[in-house]
Amino acid sequence: MAANVQDVIMLVGDSITQNGWERGGFAQLLAERYVRKLDVLNRGFSGYQTDWAIPVFEQIFAKQHEQHHVPKVKLLTIWFGANDAAPAPSPQHVPRDRYKENLSHLVQMVKSPTSAYYSPDTQIILITPPPVNTKQWNRPDNPRVFETTKAYAEDVKEVGEKENVPVADIWTSIFDAAGRSEEKCAKYLWDGLHLNSDGYNIVFQDVIDIVERVYPELKAEGGKLQDVFIPWRELNVQNPRPSLVKRNARF
Amino acid sequence: MAANVQDVIMLVGDSITQNGWERGGFAQLLAERYVRKLDVLNRGFSGYQTDWAIPVFEQIFAKQHEQHHVPKVKLLTIWFGANDAAPAPSPQHVPRDRYKENLSHLVQMVKSPTSAYYSPDTQIILITPPPVNTKQWNRPDNPRVFETTKAYAEDVKEVGEKENVPVADIWTSIFDAAGRSEEKCAKYLWDGLHLNSDGYNIVFQDVIDIVERVYPELKAEGGKLQDVFIPWRELNVQNPRPSLVKRNARF
Repeated sequence: MAANVQDVIMLVGDSITQNGWERGGFAQLLAERYVRKLDVLNRGFSGYQTDWAIPVFEQIFAKQHEQHHVPKVKLLTIWFGANDAAPAPSPQHVPRDRYKENLSHLVQMVKSPTSAYYSPDTQIILITPPPVNTKQWNRPDNPRVFETTKAYAEDVKEVGEKENVPVADIWTSIFDAAGRSEEKCAKYLWDGLHLNSDGYNIVFQDVIDIVERVYPELKAEGGKLQDVFIPWRELNVQNPRPSLVKRNARF
Repeated sequence: MAANVQDVIMLVGDSITQNGWERGGFAQLLAERYVRKLDVLNRGFSGYQTDWAIPVFEQIFAKQHEQHHVPKVKLLTIWFGANDAAPAPSPQHVPRDRYKENLSHLVQMVKSPTSAYYSPDTQIILITPPPVNTKQWNRPDNPRVFETTKAYAEDVKEVGEKENVPVADIWTSIFDAAGRSEEKCAKYLWDGLHLNSDGYNIVFQDVIDIVERVYPELKAEGGKLQDVFIPWRELNVQNPRPSLVKRNARF
């Protein structure tokens, strides 16, 4: 059994989160950055949208009364939209108003003191879906529309303002990096919809920038985090056992 | 708070485990392979050896009475030796007899029915330290000896036989891949001691081979594992909620 020794970063989303364990993916980059401090839990679900995310979130995020037994989620990313933006009648389609309500609902589950899932220790970052390169995404069975996904990205920013949660607007970061050209987004997307390591690197940088600016206590270095077990060069090698005790974040 | 939804693979070791989150590292490769099935917990501690690992293991592995609240460790890798093999009087040095006793002790903590940490659900793989390329490892302050590390790798195999635990003998796999030439091990080591992604790929393959051969129930595909939450194409989209319930491993 795995004892509860490190708090966690939880990544909630669709396939673009699920694929984050690829080399150069944002889960891999975060896990490398936070090793010995925070564990990274990838809760990405390929194909899912926000309607389906809510019942899942009710199971992956612990209720208040369970909090003594499970790791604290210090940082939570919520990253949907790539599937919500699938045009009707796709079963993945979620209309924009409901998409915004669902994102607000997910945030409120964590931030509202009256929620069973209330977790004041959890800092949230919302992430916009990336731009779709429809020239590259050749899936007539499951189409996407450039302007539609752009609108869903705008919706995330609206929810962020309403809920007072920072937004990693990676739609804009990637579109800007591509010279504001849909076709040049191919540099960051391997199939027109999913990110390659260049795309994930932009996401990672945007997330880290928000941590530094908005949640500096969660910086991997220079914040309130330290290695849970002591660096070996700080050990008292004559009598190591007393210093080999799990430490908490530095406050 | 993070609810307990996925069992885990726990990687216990020194810096060679800690660095496993690098791109192409064995932690990253395992996390990618087991996404939505098992979480990977990296419990690698740079510079540590087996004397120091035991008090740490007592804290990172849960006791039997805690088992209802924490994830099960389905697979545990134990990978020390690179520092134990540092020659005396280095504080990292652990004599070979005690190294073997320590490895046996770690295994027995998990496998002995009389241990407070007894966990019959946990499958263990021991991993040998990699060969050291002393031509490449230019650290007069912290030297290594090729033949010494080789002897510690042999010791792991002896412990594996005694404890009836499979051993990923990556010392031999890497040395063989390098044409049994110390200098050619540079293809797999970035500094003579630590693995690069080519080296980690051999470790990953050896671990996966043991899973397929010895612990086939833990195969990512075709074993007893399935995605904890249903693949979206299997959802009943007319009434999704009943199918969006966390599932257990398939038995």
